Amino acid sequence: MRVSQIGEFGLIDRLRKFQNLTSRIVKGIGDDAAVLKHNAQRYQLVTTDMLVEGGHFLRSMPAEKIGRKALACSISDIAAMGGLPTAAVVSLGIPEDLDIAFVERMYAGMLRVARIFGVSLVGGDTVRSKKITINVALLGEVEKTRLVCRDGAKVGDVIFVSGPLGGSLKSGRHLTFTPRVKEARFLVEHFKPTAMMDISDGLVGDLGHILKASGVGAALERGKIPVNRGVTFRQALTEGEDFELLFTLAKPVARKLIARFPRKFHAIGQILSRSSGLRLMNNDGKTGLLNLKAFAHF
Amino acid sequence: MRVSQIGEFGLIDRLRKFQNLTSRIVKGIGDDAAVLKHNAQRYQLVTTDMLVEGGHFLRSMPAEKIGRKALACSISDIAAMGGLPTAAVVSLGIPEDLDIAFVERMYAGMLRVARIFGVSLVGGDTVRSKKITINVALLGEVEKTRLVCRDGAKVGDVIFVSGPLGGSLKSGRHLTFTPRVKEARFLVEHFKPTAMMDISDGLVGDLGHILKASGVGAALERGKIPVNRGVTFRQALTEGEDFELLFTLAKPVARKLIARFPRKFHAIGQILSRSSGLRLMNNDGKTGLLNLKAFAHF
Repeated sequence: MRVSQIGEFGLIDRLRKFQNLTSRIVKGIGDDAAVLKHNAQRYQLVTTDMLVEGGHFLRSMPAEKIGRKALACSISDIAAMGGLPTAAVVSLGIPEDLDIAFVERMYAGMLRVARIFGVSLVGGDTVRSKKITINVALLGEVEKTRLVCRDGAKVGDVIFVSGPLGGSLKSGRHLTFTPRVKEARFLVEHFKPTAMMDISDGLVGDLGHILKASGVGAALERGKIPVNRGVTFRQALTEGEDFELLFTLAKPVARKLIARFPRKFHAIGQILSRSSGLRLMNNDGKTGLLNLKAFAHF
Repeated sequence: MRVSQIGEFGLIDRLRKFQNLTSRIVKGIGDDAAVLKHNAQRYQLVTTDMLVEGGHFLRSMPAEKIGRKALACSISDIAAMGGLPTAAVVSLGIPEDLDIAFVERMYAGMLRVARIFGVSLVGGDTVRSKKITINVALLGEVEKTRLVCRDGAKVGDVIFVSGPLGGSLKSGRHLTFTPRVKEARFLVEHFKPTAMMDISDGLVGDLGHILKASGVGAALERGKIPVNRGVTFRQALTEGEDFELLFTLAKPVARKLIARFPRKFHAIGQILSRSSGLRLMNNDGKTGLLNLKAFAHF
């Protein structure tokens, strides 16, 4: 059987059996970052992201933005756990005929976003490769009391996103987005999300991860989902690389958040029991099952 | 200017200016692993290695061994700092037509070596890529008193390798080598190497890194360099991927090591002042300058 037949998430499910967790590992495969024991107050977070020319970016795009994106994706993963990023190691696969200035501009872009978010670039590897390939492995930290995973959503929780969705690739936003570190920290410090992740594979697909991990279902309200300009509703539901936060809050806390920030965070639906599956409530109040088909890498 | 014109190490030198070290970073770019503050007794180590099909392995090679190699390279880096590996995240770039069984066998190979060396595989990323690309980012730990870097070699120190060199690619040893964790830990616990690294780019090139970092020169003794069977002396000096330890010891300590393990560790030369450059003493006692040309990735 080929990788294309089971898709990225089918493959990840199969690879899960190859993890060997020890007592020092709090959480392994299956969240935005792995969680390791660190000290009495904090956990360490680790995430890794590979970007390949042709899939995640084109050589014709500005090199600074390519570098920026490579690091920003990983920062977004750390934010989605409620943490703060600390240090990154970068592996670079580059064609031998690539202009050194291009490589330096990629690094300059990475360094700029690193500085903004307090990340130290501490080392790396460079190898020869036909396609430009960038791997960022990023460490982070989170207070034990502030860690948020995908598996804590409860029936009755309200589902939120941190901004409008869709059209990230077409608009170029996938190169220039701001990882939601500030928002995520604000949420974990004051509102205790029950589940959180960043939207990298599309709202429906990523909400599906939360539902599966938490063993619940959900209903989204069509009229409440914020959609970027020039983007269809379907695109907002399924397109990847928005890098907004998707999170759930217990109802009383949700009410407070809505009252304080009616425009910043968008309540888009509610967590239901598992048997409900994932439903969409149309503007006429009727609900139907949503097909869990989202952007997949294969 | 193209990457091929300055080579891997020229490129790394140029990229050094893009690192931004903070107070939590003990050592950034330029050693086998980055060194981060961890707790009162220990540092944390981080290393990343990218392997690309065609360069580091072929698809026709056994998948288990490819996976094994990907993790073993990184384990070797942690060992070279005197540390013990702890947890790894793996990014995988794979062609969509690749057989899932191939991917699973790669992971099985990784898991096997992970178990032997106490590494937890805790997460990863999978993306589409034309060439199979594996990136392993590995964490490790080392007691502050046992950290060994490349920059501590002193004039008069004796230079050692942990085993015979050369022919790793041709013999297939680059797929099956044992990372020298046990040997490195034994050395840092009992013999306090002044400098250490693993030989991944060839003896001459890698010794060059120690000399440069330590600001010293060296003389190697031709007759003392252990050479693998079927391999020329030149190959033993310049071929990469031996993954033996290259280390230096102060003379009194060196004598003790030689007396206790005359066959396990090989004294191959001596550290001289910087102005001596890198010299080779032939069997007739005459010495000449050695050309610092080793296996480079570009």
